[in-house]
Amino acid sequence: MRITLKDCADILGRYRSFLILTHASPDGDTLGSAFALKRALQKIGKPSQVVCNDEIPRKYSFLWDGITNDPVNFEAVIAVDVADRKLLGDKINAEFGDKIVLAIDHHLSHRDYAENTFLLGNASNAENIFILINEMGIDIDKGIATCIYCGAATDTGCFLFTNTTAETHKTAAVLIDKGADFALVNRKMFETKTVSYLKLEQMALSTIELHFGGKCAVMKITQDMFRESRSNDGECDGIASLPRKIEGVLIGITIREKENGNYKVSIRTVEPYDAAEICAHFGGGGHNRAAGCEFECSLEETKKALLGFIGEKIV
Amino acid sequence: MRITLKDCADILGRYRSFLILTHASPDGDTLGSAFALKRALQKIGKPSQVVCNDEIPRKYSFLWDGITNDPVNFEAVIAVDVADRKLLGDKINAEFGDKIVLAIDHHLSHRDYAENTFLLGNASNAENIFILINEMGIDIDKGIATCIYCGAATDTGCFLFTNTTAETHKTAAVLIDKGADFALVNRKMFETKTVSYLKLEQMALSTIELHFGGKCAVMKITQDMFRESRSNDGECDGIASLPRKIEGVLIGITIREKENGNYKVSIRTVEPYDAAEICAHFGGGGHNRAAGCEFECSLEETKKALLGFIGEKIV
Repeated sequence: MRITLKDCADILGRYRSFLILTHASPDGDTLGSAFALKRALQKIGKPSQVVCNDEIPRKYSFLWDGITNDPVNFEAVIAVDVADRKLLGDKINAEFGDKIVLAIDHHLSHRDYAENTFLLGNASNAENIFILINEMGIDIDKGIATCIYCGAATDTGCFLFTNTTAETHKTAAVLIDKGADFALVNRKMFETKTVSYLKLEQMALSTIELHFGGKCAVMKITQDMFRESRSNDGECDGIASLPRKIEGVLIGITIREKENGNYKVSIRTVEPYDAAEICAHFGGGGHNRAAGCEFECSLEETKKALLGFIGEKIV
Repeated sequence: MRITLKDCADILGRYRSFLILTHASPDGDTLGSAFALKRALQKIGKPSQVVCNDEIPRKYSFLWDGITNDPVNFEAVIAVDVADRKLLGDKINAEFGDKIVLAIDHHLSHRDYAENTFLLGNASNAENIFILINEMGIDIDKGIATCIYCGAATDTGCFLFTNTTAETHKTAAVLIDKGADFALVNRKMFETKTVSYLKLEQMALSTIELHFGGKCAVMKITQDMFRESRSNDGECDGIASLPRKIEGVLIGITIREKENGNYKVSIRTVEPYDAAEICAHFGGGGHNRAAGCEFECSLEETKKALLGFIGEKIV
């Protein structure tokens, strides 16, 4: 059932302890949302534990700075920034997927799985947590502010992406006033690259081909490159945005070889080209400006299929 | 003479037409400030012309979208975002450097040259123009909002740098509410790389060396690389930030060969290392986190001198 902000605050008031679930392959928004909520609940004497299907990368350790995340005897299960119960990850989905009392999410594509769902389509889910914590009358301290800032900055690419709104900036202003360590978050999230990732980026950039008079760029990443650079898929959150950044490029394509030999394709577009539409043609999906799909054929066949379809649109 | 906001607005009320000077090698803040002010003055029936010593790169054309910038018979000369009259550029400095009625600036290092100086130390000078336009009671339309947003985003690296404040975000929120085309500005300023620049970046990244257990990174850019990539110095605004982005690096050094064979050194640091202090030792200067200096010896000697000095500090 979709519920209102007030109902959402009421549900959190009703139980004494919580399990807070993030999505698998966790990012700064699902983790920022989870730890902001945990910190807020702690301030009103309600213990909780944040649980994720996958290991949480060490760069996020500032989110639990000064607090512990020990197991709790929980009364209710909450999911944050999880659009579909499958995204909890296999293990967590099997264990808790049908026991979720409350989902707090910002994906308009949300597929209901929880008993109660509080959904607002803000740029980041952390902005929804911000609104919720305010509704609950809990004071936002430095720790909570830093977690919410991390979520908002993650999902807007540090206020760069087109999903950024005036509201996102207003929220950021309040968070900084409340002491959010935005300089730390920005450095960890946007200004730190590993040596291995830099090597991979260099190799990937060298493969870029331009097509259709420079309107479409294709970049390739192979398992050999991962091996040679000692990088891995987990470091490559932002790499798919590179081809679209080339001057004049309207459709940027990244073809990444998976461990099983399939090819994962990420497409980033500039208006009026619809990434979701292109990917849907190949059985994938996503947003207008960023979408993905997968191919079970060779790299050359993958490229040929994509360019064949795009060529008809890009005249 | 340093003047107040009200005095500044009064001066603009006193004259009927203006010449608005930017600094040489213009960036998004000096140009955003100039065109925002020009658009605001136009709304109260006061013609003005924006003049720059150097050619304005074409990526900034959105700043004068829908308006003209024809010569005017001006009554007063204004300089925006110009910390020192030398920064006007030789030609403009010689012609107007001693005739400036009003300087509007945000550099705390400002060296007075104008009859009147309105200085607030905001992250961007465009934020000062925002405050000034509000003081003058002029309605901020989409064009003005886009120009101011461009300035604020430029000088904060799209709200990424540590100079960003809650006030910067509050201003951005108002500008977006007023219709600022922030998506266009962000794409032009932060998401567009030329093919030649990408090639240069790739070559430069391949030269990176780590020193002192990975705390210091050195990157080299030679004239040969400029030739081979067909890139040039003008495209390389942000390249000096790359070495410091490597995980664990506290001091990032970029050594760039100049056309005359000298080496221009750019240093970027993380606290507690002071880039200005290091560069001052070699006759240069700048800010705590970003500074520069120049060497007249070989590349190897330049590197040796820098690492020798830094080695004593970085223990």
